[in-house]
Amino acid sequence: MAIELFNNGSHLCLMFGDLVDDTSNSAVQANQFLIVDNGHGALIDPGGNMTYNGLLMAMHNYFPPKKLDYILASHADPDIIASINKWMVHTDCNLMISKLWARFVPHFCNAGNMDGRVQAIPDEGMSIPLGNSVIKAVPAHFMHSEGNFQFYDPVSKILFSGDMGTSIVKHDEAHGPVEDFKAHIPLIDGFHRRYMVSNKICRFWVNMVRKHDVEWIVPQHGRSFKGKKMVNEFLDWIENLPCGVDTMTQAHYAMP
Amino acid sequence: MAIELFNNGSHLCLMFGDLVDDTSNSAVQANQFLIVDNGHGALIDPGGNMTYNGLLMAMHNYFPPKKLDYILASHADPDIIASINKWMVHTDCNLMISKLWARFVPHFCNAGNMDGRVQAIPDEGMSIPLGNSVIKAVPAHFMHSEGNFQFYDPVSKILFSGDMGTSIVKHDEAHGPVEDFKAHIPLIDGFHRRYMVSNKICRFWVNMVRKHDVEWIVPQHGRSFKGKKMVNEFLDWIENLPCGVDTMTQAHYAMP
Repeated sequence: MAIELFNNGSHLCLMFGDLVDDTSNSAVQANQFLIVDNGHGALIDPGGNMTYNGLLMAMHNYFPPKKLDYILASHADPDIIASINKWMVHTDCNLMISKLWARFVPHFCNAGNMDGRVQAIPDEGMSIPLGNSVIKAVPAHFMHSEGNFQFYDPVSKILFSGDMGTSIVKHDEAHGPVEDFKAHIPLIDGFHRRYMVSNKICRFWVNMVRKHDVEWIVPQHGRSFKGKKMVNEFLDWIENLPCGVDTMTQAHYAMP
Repeated sequence: MAIELFNNGSHLCLMFGDLVDDTSNSAVQANQFLIVDNGHGALIDPGGNMTYNGLLMAMHNYFPPKKLDYILASHADPDIIASINKWMVHTDCNLMISKLWARFVPHFCNAGNMDGRVQAIPDEGMSIPLGNSVIKAVPAHFMHSEGNFQFYDPVSKILFSGDMGTSIVKHDEAHGPVEDFKAHIPLIDGFHRRYMVSNKICRFWVNMVRKHDVEWIVPQHGRSFKGKKMVNEFLDWIENLPCGVDTMTQAHYAMP
């Protein structure tokens, strides 16, 4: 079921959070996003082969897939864009992804399917025109991927934060924003301590986000952080979290 | 064309380095590996959809794909295992990959295709039995992936090092080992400075490798480092390279 995050009549942000079949607990839940502005559309992190059919069907009610302008990918993990071969075959859209992954993503596809359709985002990010609006590709390198972007929508003031803010929940628990931050910590702590690469990088990111008008942080897994108070609670937490290489010692690197 | 890295009659290591179609320069070259011991077989990093047919055909001359015991994946990038859905459908093998990616890799597949066939490698690594030998899954976290393994074969003394040691070359330049380390640096420098996550981690890895009998470092992209002298030249170089988060500053994190 599509969740309407924002709709002012000409600009629409949708989230799809229940398309992963996680009944056997073998696959992690993931959110996919569609932004439509004045008849133009972009999918953010459309996911893998498991969610392709469901997303194609679900988005049909809001926007014709064939008319998509872009797929915007935070990075190149399978839960982000393993379905890209199918999107390349069935639509005319381009893929926008970090320059670090532009020559790796063709490996998802049969030879030739992506030729001329990958736009490499430079490290400093960029403004991507969509209808009468722009989507900002925001640098988020090493959170977790080495070449990583989040996507900020200045109309809705939503920051689509990729893996930053991820909580590991079932598909029927992802739809609502977090209500009690302290109670939510057990669902985000383990993930961020290991998958976020270092506290130094998290602090750079927090400093950047604090300077901008972010009303809602919406990650690619689990629940979102809505409203300035909840956004700040998350920023305060991640700013002080040791993670990734901070926690590694020589003892972690030994031949078994 | 398969390159025989090692063959003593009962234990065979093969490299396939020319299967990526890089004529349009859109996809990065990649090496795939097959280890066979006494009638048992494992593929290491078999690659994406682009190399699946070529690898299937090429390995047929040495080992029946249907009888594969394992696919061993260093991490979950598309050039490593975007073909995994096809291998799951056409063989009975299991996938072994870091526990960090065990619930992400099913997104490569249609729902259900991996159920019960992903074996999660714990952070400390493990010895994986193959015929009368073992393959050691060696911790290589954050080089580059957060949950990352290299594979050491004690019979051939080859360390299949994943992205560590990568050089960016064309498919017809990957087959031979490096002959002049200094002349090779321009092909490895940029990649390691950005994709390897921090110098601290590289040093932990170098300390580990130095303690063991590694005759040959064979990466997943480009040329290999053969013989103790060349292995040590590479270790001395990477041990002193600032990389990844070491090189990032607040200036890299700004809204475009």
